[in-house]
Amino acid sequence: MKEKKLIKMAGKLSDPYRVISGSKFRLKDVDPGDTLWLKSKDKDRAKEGLQTGVEELARLQDRLYAQDRWSVLLIFQAMDAAGKDGAIKHVMSGVNPQGCQVFSFKAPSSEDLDHDYLWRCMKRLPERGRIGIFNRSYYEETLVVRVHPELLAKQKIPAKLVNKQIWKQRFEDIRNVERYLTRNGVVVLKFFLHVSKEEQKKRFLDRLDRPEKNWKFSGADAAEREHWNAYMKAYEEMVRHTATAEAPWYVVPADNKWFTRLVVASAVIKTLDSLDLHYPVVSEAKMQELAVAREKLAGPGKGM
Amino acid sequence: MKEKKLIKMAGKLSDPYRVISGSKFRLKDVDPGDTLWLKSKDKDRAKEGLQTGVEELARLQDRLYAQDRWSVLLIFQAMDAAGKDGAIKHVMSGVNPQGCQVFSFKAPSSEDLDHDYLWRCMKRLPERGRIGIFNRSYYEETLVVRVHPELLAKQKIPAKLVNKQIWKQRFEDIRNVERYLTRNGVVVLKFFLHVSKEEQKKRFLDRLDRPEKNWKFSGADAAEREHWNAYMKAYEEMVRHTATAEAPWYVVPADNKWFTRLVVASAVIKTLDSLDLHYPVVSEAKMQELAVAREKLAGPGKGM
Repeated sequence: MKEKKLIKMAGKLSDPYRVISGSKFRLKDVDPGDTLWLKSKDKDRAKEGLQTGVEELARLQDRLYAQDRWSVLLIFQAMDAAGKDGAIKHVMSGVNPQGCQVFSFKAPSSEDLDHDYLWRCMKRLPERGRIGIFNRSYYEETLVVRVHPELLAKQKIPAKLVNKQIWKQRFEDIRNVERYLTRNGVVVLKFFLHVSKEEQKKRFLDRLDRPEKNWKFSGADAAEREHWNAYMKAYEEMVRHTATAEAPWYVVPADNKWFTRLVVASAVIKTLDSLDLHYPVVSEAKMQELAVAREKLAGPGKGM
Repeated sequence: MKEKKLIKMAGKLSDPYRVISGSKFRLKDVDPGDTLWLKSKDKDRAKEGLQTGVEELARLQDRLYAQDRWSVLLIFQAMDAAGKDGAIKHVMSGVNPQGCQVFSFKAPSSEDLDHDYLWRCMKRLPERGRIGIFNRSYYEETLVVRVHPELLAKQKIPAKLVNKQIWKQRFEDIRNVERYLTRNGVVVLKFFLHVSKEEQKKRFLDRLDRPEKNWKFSGADAAEREHWNAYMKAYEEMVRHTATAEAPWYVVPADNKWFTRLVVASAVIKTLDSLDLHYPVVSEAKMQELAVAREKLAGPGKGM
């Protein structure tokens, strides 16, 4: 059966990057240039494979929407130019927008800062039957805020609560909230697109060289490269402390966009497939109702 | 010092009802008719005391608002006619509404049911510097939903997630979320107004007898009396599993409204006082700015 084969392939492509227990995770064990058994020459075949995957994804999402029980939250985190926007675009473009919503979290507003840090994300969680995508998320609270402590100072948290325990506490709170969500029907998948410092440089230069990509470049992004090692440490800590069986991290090699997208699509497909989605079963009474409606519509009666 | 005496009295009135570790809690140990050392003849003095308390509360809230760091969440849970609305009205009426917001949570809407059960409450959490009041809350998920399992079936949670562990899980998730909130500057106080079955009957009859109170009575409320014991068990379990040092429950005797209000006001005052609230300190630079402005305003210059 074609579908079965596809699911199996989805597992082969995404399982190697799935982290469900963080304690042994080391970022250096993941090569940003990795493409498993695929080579550069397989790129076109990989793109065809992605297309097949996107179609399957659309089918699964239609059932997710009709069944209206589970919701799916996809979280994307990465350094700039790692390909978050592209992955979202290419993996999710086949999906009915009525059942899919993307939120990008940039610097928090003053209204956001007047609340706990999960607030702006929690109120945007996907409804049942829908896929919600967070382009960046509350994980920034353990990344950019950790690398730039001056941001923490701006958060207006009462001084006596800002102590050495804060990162440990944040990881613990995030783990707990994600477990709560999964207990209530929100399936949580997290993607860290892992790009190398060299590849980022290439992509930045590309943005500078091509006028139609200029808008994507900001001097501040380049300045963040100075903090590369601190960021890598923060990402590693994040995965180590928040990768769980309920809400796994996928640490996806991101130096080859075609491969990144294949892995992301595979992870989503495999997870949706595991939910045993099906169209709602129509009751006996409803069936009779449908039969009556059919008769009326087909018959010669007036006013129909 | 007058204020110090008031805080001490607030502690004497509220500490006896504060539960910070639930494991030994038994609801039968709290007499709904209890009034500590106060007698019926002290009722008028108690009302004067409440007035003094309300004024102190307004003073504390002004500082809370100006300091803009902490927020305070007061959760009220109780059987019908236990006096939640009255307590909110009489304790909080002196407070500037700009810094205080009340949300009443009734049966969840279809949009609410399309989300996890905390969603509708979390998005309404008070901003920093403000007092938020939940008239009923996510705790209903462990009360009315527990007493009426048919409500759980309506929640559209994927079937395989609804298991025997669900109440234990809900208590655990709620404990964790409240700890998260307290770590981020939300002070959480929870009030269970504990009324007796006899007193509830009296108040229901009063609502039926007095035309201006008719609107407060619904036949459904009276029908819930059949489930009284199940509710009491659910309240006891709730306190046993979610009373913590970070987010204590106050189990407040509620057969005497004047006493209930005194205890609630006392608990809020004592907690606000413990936050060490103060008006923001004005910096040296700002002081100079103020001096310049003063000079300009007072001087004979043009255009001012």
